Amino acid sequence: MKAVCTFNPPDEIKNDIQQSFPDTVFTFIKKRHFKTSDIKDAEILITFGEDLKNEDIDSAKDLKWIMVTSAGLEKMPWKAIKKRGIMITNARGIHKIPMAEFTFGYILQHEKQFRTIWEQQKKSEWNTHLPLQEVHGKTLMVAGAGAIGQEIARLAKAFGMHTLGMNSNGRETANFDEMYTAETMNEGLKKTDYLVSILPSTAQTTHFYKMEHFEAMKKTAVFINIGRGDAVEEKVLQTALDNGEIAHVFLDVFQEEPLPASHPFWKIENLTITPHISSHSQNYLPRAFEIFKHNLHTYSNKEGQFKNVVDQEKGY
Amino acid sequence: MKAVCTFNPPDEIKNDIQQSFPDTVFTFIKKRHFKTSDIKDAEILITFGEDLKNEDIDSAKDLKWIMVTSAGLEKMPWKAIKKRGIMITNARGIHKIPMAEFTFGYILQHEKQFRTIWEQQKKSEWNTHLPLQEVHGKTLMVAGAGAIGQEIARLAKAFGMHTLGMNSNGRETANFDEMYTAETMNEGLKKTDYLVSILPSTAQTTHFYKMEHFEAMKKTAVFINIGRGDAVEEKVLQTALDNGEIAHVFLDVFQEEPLPASHPFWKIENLTITPHISSHSQNYLPRAFEIFKHNLHTYSNKEGQFKNVVDQEKGY
Repeated sequence: MKAVCTFNPPDEIKNDIQQSFPDTVFTFIKKRHFKTSDIKDAEILITFGEDLKNEDIDSAKDLKWIMVTSAGLEKMPWKAIKKRGIMITNARGIHKIPMAEFTFGYILQHEKQFRTIWEQQKKSEWNTHLPLQEVHGKTLMVAGAGAIGQEIARLAKAFGMHTLGMNSNGRETANFDEMYTAETMNEGLKKTDYLVSILPSTAQTTHFYKMEHFEAMKKTAVFINIGRGDAVEEKVLQTALDNGEIAHVFLDVFQEEPLPASHPFWKIENLTITPHISSHSQNYLPRAFEIFKHNLHTYSNKEGQFKNVVDQEKGY
Repeated sequence: MKAVCTFNPPDEIKNDIQQSFPDTVFTFIKKRHFKTSDIKDAEILITFGEDLKNEDIDSAKDLKWIMVTSAGLEKMPWKAIKKRGIMITNARGIHKIPMAEFTFGYILQHEKQFRTIWEQQKKSEWNTHLPLQEVHGKTLMVAGAGAIGQEIARLAKAFGMHTLGMNSNGRETANFDEMYTAETMNEGLKKTDYLVSILPSTAQTTHFYKMEHFEAMKKTAVFINIGRGDAVEEKVLQTALDNGEIAHVFLDVFQEEPLPASHPFWKIENLTITPHISSHSQNYLPRAFEIFKHNLHTYSNKEGQFKNVVDQEKGY
């Protein structure tokens, strides 16, 4: 059985996987961009899922299973995959810990004014007159209350926050004090201090946030987007900040990535930019390959349950 | 009954306290430095406890109770207080929420490389090659495992950390996985990623940390001091950093405060300075006055228990 990985993980991972499955021939592609011919013999493909094309799938005649070591599947060549009924599994669930930590990094840097303090240090300036506030007692709404959202809400409860969640039907969800839908969320936004968007990129979520959402929020509120950049039009966000509808925006995702150097967002005082790294972690690949190993056992032995099989109609 | 407050809290607090105790005459001193004569008629004194002198106490013949709206009592005029047996209450316990939050602000800023990311934003630079790590799975030791330390450990457990505590006798303490004493702590330091010092300033804790402590720690470890600056000699800390014994230091407290503009600490790349503000919070005074109100009920009605009475022998 041949498995091809379109990237080159650390030796530790490669050795572990080869030793765990001695009957499988693994090929790890070391160059930056693989060619169609590199993967044509693969029965199993391991990929970040960002550069696969329909012709790659068509030429890989034995391909039965693709493990995507990320969560977003927007760039997958669905046409060729669906035609052949190839199984897709992904790495969903492994983002929740780093992304929840990153979110609280944002929140604490805001409440504790770390950027201002850092600028003071550079000027050797001791200034204690900073209006520091607490996370404790504040209200957080998560739009997209799935696994990542629930982990953010779990930490929020530990910090003594009030947690609001928004999902498609307002069903009760672990770690959330109150649930809303897209139709009712403006009620919740009135009392929200932090709105965290984890909406994926789908037809329903493109340009989801409108001026009315930001107008509903407190003037002191903060908008955090660690989901997908197209959930909000850039000009809407810019207007919300210009009009003082909210106090600060933290963005890890953008309509165009990398964000061009000429983009006006870089220079907005109350907009903090991070380069789509909220899920980055030294534990990322080890966790993704743990899921792969579980599934390869299932695949090889034809027993047990696969983890994280993607519903190709829903797209997640 | 006369109560004098040596500072001027917000109107909301003043109105609340006056309305809650109509039989008590409150005076709030608005100028920056009060005079001995300003407090001479006080039966009750409310103060931050930093500028009281023995002669102030001696001249206030009716003084029976001093409410100190902070936790540190190093600067109190103990000689005059003990001579008269004046009751001291303080605001201990109200620091734990903001200080624990501040500690995790430090930790997350370190793991998520926020300083580097801010510098990138200023240069409109999109660089994703940052070795972000997770708090999850790391080990944190708190030296001084009291109320504040336990709150830090509680949050640490929520973040999935392993928690070590150090106190005078190694007794089991809530939220800590393992306990150490000053004698045994080097064993724990070997596996520590974050050492958080909340040691108060006492004869036992002056220059408590020695080179051996930093040498015992991992090269990647971080030292955080939010307790008192004299817990570690500056030259020891500087040498530990120079020798690469630890990777980063976060200091909120210093031997001399404000830290002089000429001090070399300001310019050390892997030393982050905050100006003794870890306990600052918009909730600080409201919480301190809640304790005062409870105690004034007890004092006025001669029933119930006082909160936070200071043991004048122990000094806390």
